[in-house]
Amino acid sequence: MPDGPFRDVVVIDLTRVLAGPFSTMLLGELGARVIKVENPAGGDDTRQFVPFWNGQSAYYLSLNRGKESIALNLKDPDDRQVFRGLIRRGDVLVENYRPGTLERLGFDWATLQQLNPRLIYASVSGFGQTGPWKHKPAYDMIIQALGGLMSLTGFPGWPPVKAGTSIADLAAGLFTVIGIASALYHRERTGRGLRVDVAMLDSLISLLEHAVMRYAVTGEAPGPIGNRHPSIAPFEVYDTADRPMVIAAGNDAIFHRLCEALGLERLAEDPRYRSNQLRVQYADDLKTDLEAVLRTNKADHWLAILDRAGVPASPVQSVAEAVEHPQVQARQMIVRAGELRMVGNPIKMDAFPDQPTRRPAPELGADGEGIRREFLTGEGCSSGPRRGDNVPAEED
Amino acid sequence: MPDGPFRDVVVIDLTRVLAGPFSTMLLGELGARVIKVENPAGGDDTRQFVPFWNGQSAYYLSLNRGKESIALNLKDPDDRQVFRGLIRRGDVLVENYRPGTLERLGFDWATLQQLNPRLIYASVSGFGQTGPWKHKPAYDMIIQALGGLMSLTGFPGWPPVKAGTSIADLAAGLFTVIGIASALYHRERTGRGLRVDVAMLDSLISLLEHAVMRYAVTGEAPGPIGNRHPSIAPFEVYDTADRPMVIAAGNDAIFHRLCEALGLERLAEDPRYRSNQLRVQYADDLKTDLEAVLRTNKADHWLAILDRAGVPASPVQSVAEAVEHPQVQARQMIVRAGELRMVGNPIKMDAFPDQPTRRPAPELGADGEGIRREFLTGEGCSSGPRRGDNVPAEED
Repeated sequence: MPDGPFRDVVVIDLTRVLAGPFSTMLLGELGARVIKVENPAGGDDTRQFVPFWNGQSAYYLSLNRGKESIALNLKDPDDRQVFRGLIRRGDVLVENYRPGTLERLGFDWATLQQLNPRLIYASVSGFGQTGPWKHKPAYDMIIQALGGLMSLTGFPGWPPVKAGTSIADLAAGLFTVIGIASALYHRERTGRGLRVDVAMLDSLISLLEHAVMRYAVTGEAPGPIGNRHPSIAPFEVYDTADRPMVIAAGNDAIFHRLCEALGLERLAEDPRYRSNQLRVQYADDLKTDLEAVLRTNKADHWLAILDRAGVPASPVQSVAEAVEHPQVQARQMIVRAGELRMVGNPIKMDAFPDQPTRRPAPELGADGEGIRREFLTGEGCSSGPRRGDNVPAEED
Repeated sequence: MPDGPFRDVVVIDLTRVLAGPFSTMLLGELGARVIKVENPAGGDDTRQFVPFWNGQSAYYLSLNRGKESIALNLKDPDDRQVFRGLIRRGDVLVENYRPGTLERLGFDWATLQQLNPRLIYASVSGFGQTGPWKHKPAYDMIIQALGGLMSLTGFPGWPPVKAGTSIADLAAGLFTVIGIASALYHRERTGRGLRVDVAMLDSLISLLEHAVMRYAVTGEAPGPIGNRHPSIAPFEVYDTADRPMVIAAGNDAIFHRLCEALGLERLAEDPRYRSNQLRVQYADDLKTDLEAVLRTNKADHWLAILDRAGVPASPVQSVAEAVEHPQVQARQMIVRAGELRMVGNPIKMDAFPDQPTRRPAPELGADGEGIRREFLTGEGCSSGPRRGDNVPAEED
């Protein structure tokens, strides 16, 4: 498993599906030991999600590599005792049930704190632990619609469309990791755990900075932004002879280099294109003029020319091309767990090696026996982290 | 300013525009003191970005609330001395120059470590500090194109479109915060700082989990996903009499409740819709059948009915509606700095109050005099955090 800053942190992971497992996967990438607690009746729902890889869900495998798995029925007295052992000796508890679920199982925040005052308890949910909508169900697409992102994506006059990845789930996972990491720092300084509450809706709103700012200033909601920069030109997607590409001429100097590279010096002299402000005003004309040349050859041809000219540009790549891109490969952003390729760790740290492989995700309950022994009876304590400091006496 | 887990952390912030300032803003939300170091010739570029609010850029104001500002010319000997003072006594240095820029100014990682072995040095860039593309310029749209997200967004057969927010910049900001927060924890455990390297491209790839997984298993790049869930139906955007809405019937029970709520019990008996697998196969027919009823009344009418029936649904909201949504308001996700409204803190922690207001962003160099006095001469040390522990002796 990866070594990292959280090498001495034990995460008790009750999460399922996407937002929660993504957050605990990242904690694992940063060195934490992640103990996934799954229901014995099938475990995480994503274990059933297609496509499969060697008999296991690739979805599950990708998000749960390197974790340990124990199957616990939190309504069963013996299993509850094991869970209490985990809480007592773990550092972080993460769950993404609907608000109130863990409470109804007898593990409210006061009880958890009593079991372990150093515990950090993070919840990730659709709408958060407070507010009038806290009990409502949420899916990524619901949050993208409700949170306004869908209204910003796509072209004016076209139907609204969601972003092509589950950004509300993933953003909530990222904010949860930030909450947990900063709470772990706080605990080192104070000795106290705390409660973290992250919502998908809040997280998505946090990614709308620019649009919220425009609304706050003008009182009007911004519409879909298409593929054109609102205040820089030329800065959008252009057609070539074979495939679309982005050209991003962020200032006058780049615009002049672009014109020269395309043999379009006359455009740099055109009164419509003399300043960025004018180019934004005449962006449609400019697109037509540029595409008249760009359509005469393939994107690769133009990309080589623009690269030499120092003009930022990129083809609109498929996921296959992105994965195989030399920079993505050089950064080791694609790793292997067993034979399955998956996304690596985007947080590069000089103090820790960036490993090319990961331990595969566990079968349901694969590590149960060892974990029960270690956390229930006290055996194995000597090899565990956070051994007994600040752990209150057994009360039942 | 907000109190939070990083209340004793001083961040030296060399970042400009979006990804970097977003990351240091979040550190400020978590309690850190953020000292923004700006070039004296105008400061952060975004100070010029429209729209303006009371004479200042709303873009700048939103991303830099609560920070302090000092104007330093890093080529000027006196200013370099102030900068060295900041490095010696700060905890975190963040920059988003092109790789190599700070090095050429004489502040390579070895020099920084010599000045302060406890320093955490985080860089956020387009392509990272390593690899064949490290020196290339990047903008959010370039990364969305190159990284494959654009190929996943939009409808099959339509042109590729970018997500309606600068997700590559923002994701890089989030991973940078995670890197810094975990490095701060690591420093508490070991006494040592470390170097964090985050790239926009790596960060975007990390958000493509599902698409990378599909490509890894099948060898084929997934296409644009539109607004329909690939393996659940009914689960997409539907037209009503006035505006589109999402209905997300995640399982058979919800589908049956949906049919009943719409007076479409016959659909639940239709052989095409007997199982989720069949409904996915006949999703077009199902959309037609549902919209035949949904188009007869307005979205609000249906939303009230579906809410009572326990069917997850949402209108496709504008940013204005999202900002004013009762849950967003109840969660205090919109705060004020002065009179300008902006996005609040999505990481709710029971240990710290969630304030409704923020200190506004600073004028360029507004805090320069005090910061010079505090960090250059040693005056004011007694009120500063991280006072002198592990700070090596002045060497020049």
